[in-house]
Amino acid sequence: MNQHAPLSEAQSLHARLTVIDGLIVSDFGPDIFRDMQKGGITAANCTCCIWEGFTATMQNIMQWKAWFRDHPDLIMQVKTTADIRRAKAEGKTGIILGWQNVSGMEDQIGYLSLFKELGVGIIQMAYNTQNLVATGCYEGRDGGLSDFGREVVAEMNRLGILCDLSHVGGNSSRDVILASRQPVAYSHCLPAGLKAHPRNKTDEELRFIIDHGGFVGVTMFTPFLARGTEATVDDYVEAMEYVINLCGEDRVGYGTDFTQGHEKPFFDWITHDKGYARRLTDFGTIQNPAGIDTIGHSSALTATMLRRGWSESRIEKIMGENWVNLLAEVWGE
Amino acid sequence: MNQHAPLSEAQSLHARLTVIDGLIVSDFGPDIFRDMQKGGITAANCTCCIWEGFTATMQNIMQWKAWFRDHPDLIMQVKTTADIRRAKAEGKTGIILGWQNVSGMEDQIGYLSLFKELGVGIIQMAYNTQNLVATGCYEGRDGGLSDFGREVVAEMNRLGILCDLSHVGGNSSRDVILASRQPVAYSHCLPAGLKAHPRNKTDEELRFIIDHGGFVGVTMFTPFLARGTEATVDDYVEAMEYVINLCGEDRVGYGTDFTQGHEKPFFDWITHDKGYARRLTDFGTIQNPAGIDTIGHSSALTATMLRRGWSESRIEKIMGENWVNLLAEVWGE
Repeated sequence: MNQHAPLSEAQSLHARLTVIDGLIVSDFGPDIFRDMQKGGITAANCTCCIWEGFTATMQNIMQWKAWFRDHPDLIMQVKTTADIRRAKAEGKTGIILGWQNVSGMEDQIGYLSLFKELGVGIIQMAYNTQNLVATGCYEGRDGGLSDFGREVVAEMNRLGILCDLSHVGGNSSRDVILASRQPVAYSHCLPAGLKAHPRNKTDEELRFIIDHGGFVGVTMFTPFLARGTEATVDDYVEAMEYVINLCGEDRVGYGTDFTQGHEKPFFDWITHDKGYARRLTDFGTIQNPAGIDTIGHSSALTATMLRRGWSESRIEKIMGENWVNLLAEVWGE
Repeated sequence: MNQHAPLSEAQSLHARLTVIDGLIVSDFGPDIFRDMQKGGITAANCTCCIWEGFTATMQNIMQWKAWFRDHPDLIMQVKTTADIRRAKAEGKTGIILGWQNVSGMEDQIGYLSLFKELGVGIIQMAYNTQNLVATGCYEGRDGGLSDFGREVVAEMNRLGILCDLSHVGGNSSRDVILASRQPVAYSHCLPAGLKAHPRNKTDEELRFIIDHGGFVGVTMFTPFLARGTEATVDDYVEAMEYVINLCGEDRVGYGTDFTQGHEKPFFDWITHDKGYARRLTDFGTIQNPAGIDTIGHSSALTATMLRRGWSESRIEKIMGENWVNLLAEVWGE
């Protein structure tokens, strides 16, 4: 390994890359958008639904439309991978609207066509607990994909919306992987092989999704990393290496789960079922791995990969090109 | 006047025309779509909101998206005038989603951007009574455009949504005509000069909208015609001639207000404030002018115009080209 790649080499490479962050759930607004630009983020899957119902989710999207209008120098909406290429060319961050829960569609499958048209390209089938479609990873038991959920998967396939399984339980994930006619993803997860945790995926689960044409985005949320709040960006890249060793380097990407700017009320909201019911987990201190404190430091990933001896080709794939290929498949391009 | 133009000449001309019906509020579904195709309708402003709030309006649009998917041989969505030209080339009817009331946006101006993106291109500022924006033509008094309404007009101008004033009161209409930076329309109205009625527009009102760059679509709802249910398609075309004499032939079109397929519950719903409160009016027998009983008979308009000695150039304009020009201006093309 080249332990001392000059910073300028990493920065120069990072500036050339198409960088896709598979999950950001920050306190969005111009401060975050400026940090995304600083971090060289070409596009990101930005959460606009966790526990919200139909109307509140539409209002979140309405807010995004206002941001697209008010900050055209920083961000632009992404509905196709051509939009991602355009964001790169124009030096903006492309916003892929994504859900971490199907609550936004309530019980109306037909709503999905409206949300897809408005730019929702990625939907997680459950957020930690059970919903009308599937069961999350913090439930005591997971009965798998519901019959209604099968209809939802079929409609997502028809429309070209990526099924995300990061916070979904094992049985439900397996069912979705088998039911979907399109590749599906864990957009932001870590391997249970490095730390046992309800949110982490076993080697078998990681291989299963890959064997069925799927995708794994590696996350860096420190409560799920072996060294917890002691973790550094090296631990994060090591976790990527673990996943690449299992899954190969063509169907792996990254998804940070950056919660930048959020305070306690947000973490209370996401760690209670439906935002207010029983507490599901307590993350303790929220702290990113040392060396990648904010989205603006995302080039530290490229630098760390270089320092650890990754080839430029591998870096390009993991930092974004694999995500672009996956999205092109699912979005039907 | 040539009283005996051969039918085939009219049909041949009608088949060449770009035909735009400025208002249809029928019981939509495949039967209506087939009749639209039979009638040679290139595009129509199809109502998807009268009293509905945000969610119900979204559900109506969801239904339209399903129809676009299920009947691609009959209809297609229109968001631009290029779509109208494409509908003509492909022999389909283009659907312009339109509202007859702002109830669908509730109190959220930001929702308008979502609806515009989903295809809502025409919005009437009030339906018969007072709402948050304006006052309708059946109210005892009309205080004019509200201050909130001025914000709504500005946002509609920004987005490129046509302001429709057909069912709007005189003061509110005047205020919108003056407030709008874009041309506005009476999409479906009749002249009070032929019959005094709260829904009909005086000569001064018709000239006022035209003098401010606006547009008048002439309707054929028999309760508003001088001869009522005795009216024929000739009475309808005569009303168009009355309007053309006042307004010239470049900013006039037609908008039938076809309610085809609807039964008493629908008419009860539209004639009560909010769909259920006090009764506003009673139309009596609903019957179209003789000779144009259904949308499928729309070529009778072209035939009647020809028979009354209209030039081909005038027929082209009134039957659709003027509408296309107006929409291109408002939609920013």
